Amino acid sequence: MQEQAFPDTSSRDSSDRDGGLHYSAFGARLEVPAINHLMSIPSEHPEVLSLAAGFTDNAVLPADLVRDVVSRLCGNPSGADCLQYGTTQGRKGLRELTARFVASYHGENAEVIRADRTFITNGSQQALFLAMRVLCDPGDVVLVENPTYFVFLSMLQGMGVQPVGIPVAENGSIDGVALDALMRQMDREGRKGRIKAAYVMGYYANPSSRCLSLEDKMVLAATLRTHGMRIPVIEDAAYRELAFERPWEVPSVLSLDAYEGYPLLYLGTYTKPFATGLKVGYGITNRPEWLEKMLFAKGNQDFGSAHFPQAIVEQVLQDGVYPEFVRNLGLHYGAKARLLDSVLRAEGLDRMGWRWAKPEGGLLFWLRAPAGVDTREGSHFYEACLAKGVIYVPGNLCFADGAPSDYIRLSIGALPNEKLEEAARRLCDAARNL
Amino acid sequence: MQEQAFPDTSSRDSSDRDGGLHYSAFGARLEVPAINHLMSIPSEHPEVLSLAAGFTDNAVLPADLVRDVVSRLCGNPSGADCLQYGTTQGRKGLRELTARFVASYHGENAEVIRADRTFITNGSQQALFLAMRVLCDPGDVVLVENPTYFVFLSMLQGMGVQPVGIPVAENGSIDGVALDALMRQMDREGRKGRIKAAYVMGYYANPSSRCLSLEDKMVLAATLRTHGMRIPVIEDAAYRELAFERPWEVPSVLSLDAYEGYPLLYLGTYTKPFATGLKVGYGITNRPEWLEKMLFAKGNQDFGSAHFPQAIVEQVLQDGVYPEFVRNLGLHYGAKARLLDSVLRAEGLDRMGWRWAKPEGGLLFWLRAPAGVDTREGSHFYEACLAKGVIYVPGNLCFADGAPSDYIRLSIGALPNEKLEEAARRLCDAARNL
Repeated sequence: MQEQAFPDTSSRDSSDRDGGLHYSAFGARLEVPAINHLMSIPSEHPEVLSLAAGFTDNAVLPADLVRDVVSRLCGNPSGADCLQYGTTQGRKGLRELTARFVASYHGENAEVIRADRTFITNGSQQALFLAMRVLCDPGDVVLVENPTYFVFLSMLQGMGVQPVGIPVAENGSIDGVALDALMRQMDREGRKGRIKAAYVMGYYANPSSRCLSLEDKMVLAATLRTHGMRIPVIEDAAYRELAFERPWEVPSVLSLDAYEGYPLLYLGTYTKPFATGLKVGYGITNRPEWLEKMLFAKGNQDFGSAHFPQAIVEQVLQDGVYPEFVRNLGLHYGAKARLLDSVLRAEGLDRMGWRWAKPEGGLLFWLRAPAGVDTREGSHFYEACLAKGVIYVPGNLCFADGAPSDYIRLSIGALPNEKLEEAARRLCDAARNL
Repeated sequence: MQEQAFPDTSSRDSSDRDGGLHYSAFGARLEVPAINHLMSIPSEHPEVLSLAAGFTDNAVLPADLVRDVVSRLCGNPSGADCLQYGTTQGRKGLRELTARFVASYHGENAEVIRADRTFITNGSQQALFLAMRVLCDPGDVVLVENPTYFVFLSMLQGMGVQPVGIPVAENGSIDGVALDALMRQMDREGRKGRIKAAYVMGYYANPSSRCLSLEDKMVLAATLRTHGMRIPVIEDAAYRELAFERPWEVPSVLSLDAYEGYPLLYLGTYTKPFATGLKVGYGITNRPEWLEKMLFAKGNQDFGSAHFPQAIVEQVLQDGVYPEFVRNLGLHYGAKARLLDSVLRAEGLDRMGWRWAKPEGGLLFWLRAPAGVDTREGSHFYEACLAKGVIYVPGNLCFADGAPSDYIRLSIGALPNEKLEEAARRLCDAARNL
């Protein structure tokens, strides 16, 4: 990714070039996201099975539960309340139940995870956007895992913010020595001061499905502290609830003493673990002044997220059925993960030299091709898969820098079991014929 | 409003000032919206009746209709679909029905008002935000009506964009001669090229409840054309459906020949005329390339609005019950408007020298106090109202520039009839005691 080249377009006048449309510097930077073409394939070619889409499984979406809750909400005399505007911060009851839920994880600190520091957003994506918007100017830098959430990379590109990968060791853990060296190097280059935040995914990360160990989190905090960098740390926990067997035991950064004094933001959601169509996400911060800025930004942007979906989620939490729902969801996706893993092995993908770790939560498999195999869009392998009728996310799209050309991301979310098996077989066929 | 002073903060480093929080230029600009304190009064003082809040009336929110629709949506075998992710642009069926609905107004052009140029947003507010974001840099200028929607002014302030009021004559109509003079003046000052858009509300504007006449729209187009300013024109039609008796007959800018060649954006919503809590708004543009930019921006920001509320609105439109719902809503608010008008007159507010026009749609009354009466926050009148237990929106907050100090905005939306009467009496008491 190039260093920086954001022309100052502010002096353009409104002459008739472009038929009267003259974009802002931001507007001019916006590009077709690399993933758009890929994601549009199945709608044009219904025979293609998508292991690329990050959708959840329709089979476990709570249609009956939502119908029952709406029937009760809209049936009682104050039913109209939930169809009225809410507040920019979001429903108080939902924030209280959300804070209580997050604080109920092992090792979390209920004194930090508070309703009054929680805000409801249009998916956790919006909370991430708001955080970036109030923190970063064009030319700034954000530290990210490598690989990381590709939509976040696209968001940063639009903002003119440069992602820099946090170095990891061979086993995927954060490499403190290399991170230290990187900070020294950026300091020498005069870029350290432009680092405005660090963004990590502690639980079943997109795309790697890796969880951060306690040591990973300690190493990151210690390295930042060594370099006097008390920057905001954002932990995206969008997949945390999707543990197949038991929750990952490491607490969030909100509750770790190592992050004492850091501005922190935890991102959670009810989309992936409950209903994607309700799009109810949230952020929890330890800093009221940061929260206030994000709420001002949200107020200007949409004046608060839709109130009705918030009321539905609040009622589900109030009814006490959410923990069991989430446990069953984990079992469901765990079974799908075992299915995909077993088909890939039965088809001999591992013997062809592909490497992956079976995830313990989340929706994603992260595979590395054997040496010499290029998996990028337009590569032989990519085209072979398309010809067989299956698509994946090319892994290079998920890297901030130094992108290798041999990873792929597969999702177990959307396809029902039979199609998931068939998609896996097609992918293995393509690999076999290379 | 000051000319421009946006310090370049990009060179700030991440030292320990502010406990590690260093805002972007945008973040640093964000201020507490002037309206925040006002809007929080009723929650702290429940005895205060709010004529300020822009809420709709709970009595006409469609709880039964929504319950019935959700029961059908979630009850059928494909029910989970509406709880799945949608697309960034929004549901195709909803866009088709929306385009058909808008095109059904008298004089609208169905060839321009198309589903593929429609996008669904989190309230029409978000569409407005996206439009501004891809068009305007800090230091740019947007032409607005004077008075205009105060949340838009707050949005522009955050973006560092300067609103400039379109001159109007005594009767409220756009003053072409004065606008022409203003454009000449801005040209001489080198500011004309910074004008990036014009924003108008054609139907029952917030706060004036005025509709733009055909002549208003022609004058605006002609003046812009005379000055070679083919800038984007945004028409916010959020209150269009809330006509008390019959729809305002002037077509939107999308369908007027006078705007041929201009980039246009029409903003509509199902919040005000159907259910605020569903927060389903939309934009319709005549320019695919602008639409694409706004969708890229939306993709980065929230990856698409909540899908479930879209499915609900789509079903309501599909069922064919929306036009009648809207007609009944107009009758309901028309009756409330007559009630408020009659109480204000019965209490003698007009005889005290206050002036207003009874609105023919929308939710708002716009009153001018007699000479010498200051209505701003903290004024004698404001404090007298507060002491009597009633609040309003001080009109000065709604002006881009040259704000007079003697307007107030009253909303008929939220309060039930008895409380609306009582609030009006309290306001008149305060006026009487001045």
